[in-house]
Amino acid sequence: MNPIQHIINIQSFSRGEINRILDRAAQLEPITHSGVSDILAGKILVTLFCEPSTRTRLSFDVAMKRLGGDVIDFGPTEESAVAKGENLADTISVMGGYADAIVLRHPKEGAARMASEFSSVPVINAGDGAGQHPTQTLLDLYTIRKESKLNNVKIAIVGDLKYGRTVYSLTHALSMYNAEIYLVSPDQLRMPDSLKRDLTDKGAKITETRDLDDVIGVVDVLYITRIQKERFPDLGEYQAVAGSYKITEETLKDAKDNLIIMHPLPRVGEIDPGVDKSRHAVYFKQSFYGVPVRMAILSMVMG
Amino acid sequence: MNPIQHIINIQSFSRGEINRILDRAAQLEPITHSGVSDILAGKILVTLFCEPSTRTRLSFDVAMKRLGGDVIDFGPTEESAVAKGENLADTISVMGGYADAIVLRHPKEGAARMASEFSSVPVINAGDGAGQHPTQTLLDLYTIRKESKLNNVKIAIVGDLKYGRTVYSLTHALSMYNAEIYLVSPDQLRMPDSLKRDLTDKGAKITETRDLDDVIGVVDVLYITRIQKERFPDLGEYQAVAGSYKITEETLKDAKDNLIIMHPLPRVGEIDPGVDKSRHAVYFKQSFYGVPVRMAILSMVMG
Amino acid sequence: MNPIQHIINIQSFSRGEINRILDRAAQLEPITHSGVSDILAGKILVTLFCEPSTRTRLSFDVAMKRLGGDVIDFGPTEESAVAKGENLADTISVMGGYADAIVLRHPKEGAARMASEFSSVPVINAGDGAGQHPTQTLLDLYTIRKESKLNNVKIAIVGDLKYGRTVYSLTHALSMYNAEIYLVSPDQLRMPDSLKRDLTDKGAKITETRDLDDVIGVVDVLYITRIQKERFPDLGEYQAVAGSYKITEETLKDAKDNLIIMHPLPRVGEIDPGVDKSRHAVYFKQSFYGVPVRMAILSMVMG
Repeated sequence: MNPIQHIINIQSFSRGEINRILDRAAQLEPITHSGVSDILAGKILVTLFCEPSTRTRLSFDVAMKRLGGDVIDFGPTEESAVAKGENLADTISVMGGYADAIVLRHPKEGAARMASEFSSVPVINAGDGAGQHPTQTLLDLYTIRKESKLNNVKIAIVGDLKYGRTVYSLTHALSMYNAEIYLVSPDQLRMPDSLKRDLTDKGAKITETRDLDDVIGVVDVLYITRIQKERFPDLGEYQAVAGSYKITEETLKDAKDNLIIMHPLPRVGEIDPGVDKSRHAVYFKQSFYGVPVRMAILSMVMG
Repeated sequence: MNPIQHIINIQSFSRGEINRILDRAAQLEPITHSGVSDILAGKILVTLFCEPSTRTRLSFDVAMKRLGGDVIDFGPTEESAVAKGENLADTISVMGGYADAIVLRHPKEGAARMASEFSSVPVINAGDGAGQHPTQTLLDLYTIRKESKLNNVKIAIVGDLKYGRTVYSLTHALSMYNAEIYLVSPDQLRMPDSLKRDLTDKGAKITETRDLDDVIGVVDVLYITRIQKERFPDLGEYQAVAGSYKITEETLKDAKDNLIIMHPLPRVGEIDPGVDKSRHAVYFKQSFYGVPVRMAILSMVMG
Repeated sequence: MNPIQHIINIQSFSRGEINRILDRAAQLEPITHSGVSDILAGKILVTLFCEPSTRTRLSFDVAMKRLGGDVIDFGPTEESAVAKGENLADTISVMGGYADAIVLRHPKEGAARMASEFSSVPVINAGDGAGQHPTQTLLDLYTIRKESKLNNVKIAIVGDLKYGRTVYSLTHALSMYNAEIYLVSPDQLRMPDSLKRDLTDKGAKITETRDLDDVIGVVDVLYITRIQKERFPDLGEYQAVAGSYKITEETLKDAKDNLIIMHPLPRVGEIDPGVDKSRHAVYFKQSFYGVPVRMAILSMVMG
């Protein structure tokens, strides 16, 4: 019997493995329109979200159902002991008896790894605090590959590069594709030096700036991240930088014709709605691509 | 390609279109018993309820599943930005990428119309504040047609005719069927004059009274509405009229043999439980008819 | 037409009927692994939990889906009138129009019986306050039969024997199998005399003790119950006894080789995690057996 395949972090995948997942997602994408498939018929997924993340939860829900499987949702855990992480091990042991795979979102870094050690079925990490969110990274890569190009892409990552979870995993993965990465942030939200070194070691070309105008004419991809209040230890620090980089039609006047703008959503003011109709805006497509990418992951671990 | 068919208000339907929906519901009703159908196999509905309405949500849920489709539920929105209506447009854009249709309940009038402008899939209005609730009106019409008669029906509408959302849509639709409408309410909850004129213009015959006894011997249908506290700007006004019209066996002593009593449920004292076993009581059937009517709507917009 | 078959309490089943349910569960258990079945295709179950019980709810959810049926969940009832029991009758009447069976959890003893009187479809009691929880008893019996032996079993029931709901139903059922029952509890949590007499009358052999060491070498089954704060009228009484019986590897040094340890879960300290890997620990299996047992019940009432 093969060992159980957990999906805990993006770092455990080679470039070849990532490519295979993206290929599989491309293969499955037509099912999201025709709707009918029995690839996971008879399989049941449990979604266990110890903090709310409606879009992520629903995209797994849809992905499973598009594949002919079914879903049970643990429901809100705020009032249960689960939220405190006390008996997550027991919860996982019980859920492993009910379902064929577990999608876990948890506020504490390392929760998914810990859960995988107690689980008799695959655990898929849907975000663990400041840690990993591998399926978000995979859908970002899928979007870049489909709407722009993945090899040697020139990408600006804008916003919170210090606390933003998305950024760590995405830049790591991009460094495997020889990306030229432009890090655009205020001084107090710069990417930590250790991580920059890590990316350079892996083959990425890194440039830092505070000013988006410096790079807007150069890049293929503009990736905006939300500056999330809850990731800041200090509220004053948050307020100083919130709203630093708001994308408007004006921002884009010198952009390349085929520039794409990405955002993990939900946005809270980082992109002006006036931009939504432009050819550059792909963030709603990006959100949709979460479905085929999660279909690929689900079919891989349960297929 | 046909344009997307949204279901926003009852006024946009002609009498012929309403008849076709009711016919379709009658055709589909047997499936609610046998249970098996694949009319919407592979389709996914998202239910997005920005205020709770368990019965409406569940009847859409059941209707979709009886047709072989599946449902994802957005879940409670109280703590999300959605409840404030801030980024409803973005939520709709994302949900349109996941699902094949959206059922929306929202506390603000006009929300469903606004949502339909951002949606790539059909939006079905499941109630928007003091605005519309078209599938409730359709199930009311279905009940009247099935349990009494729809053409030239004599109907008493009792209770809150000023703030009650149900009443606006239902009387509008009934006026297309030459109804004789008896409006029974306390003075402070009378139907606004503009609306009465509108109904008369459309062919309805309107009579107003404060006293249910005046009309109980005349009508085919007795439609009781809840006097909803949350629709009153002023609490004192609410308390003065709450409980004005409580239906008991005594109330019905002069009723026609084939009188039917309807209520949109839940009731909070408007009908004495002693009435439940009488031949007049059809409110639980009425609630059940929400399933075939919503099956008709769902199969129409996604079929 | 046969009368509707409600599942309200374990006392209404004979030994022969219980055996048939356990046999059916054993027959259905393989489906929990292969996953595919259409035994209840087209059937819809509604889960109505007026107090949270995630594991019970999810095991019914899984059981229904493993049988090819579907589930609608009423959702949290805290803010609705349902929680107060006021219009449970109306809720049941409406849900009976939507679904093919109702699973009800309710904080008030007798709620399931009352609900069954208003329901047009089968009602399954998933726990009603200090009353009954028949499917829990059935899964306990299934576990004992499968992992040990049911006839003439020697079983120690440990913990709260005064307020614990599980204990009443389980010991009643075991008395039909000539069990030797060792009641292990602190003085203030002893089983009421009336119940003990009842068990003896039915054929059980009852022994009481305060000290688990007295019986650990004798029994085939060690059934630990949680000492639930909410069942105690007095908090002081609770604090005095909480934690009286914690099972560790040390506790088990004189146990029979084939002793099994059971617990209804969730545990809150009654069993040390060090015991989990021992051959004695079957509580996670016991939790899993809730799925085939509930499949048996569901297929019985709707099949």
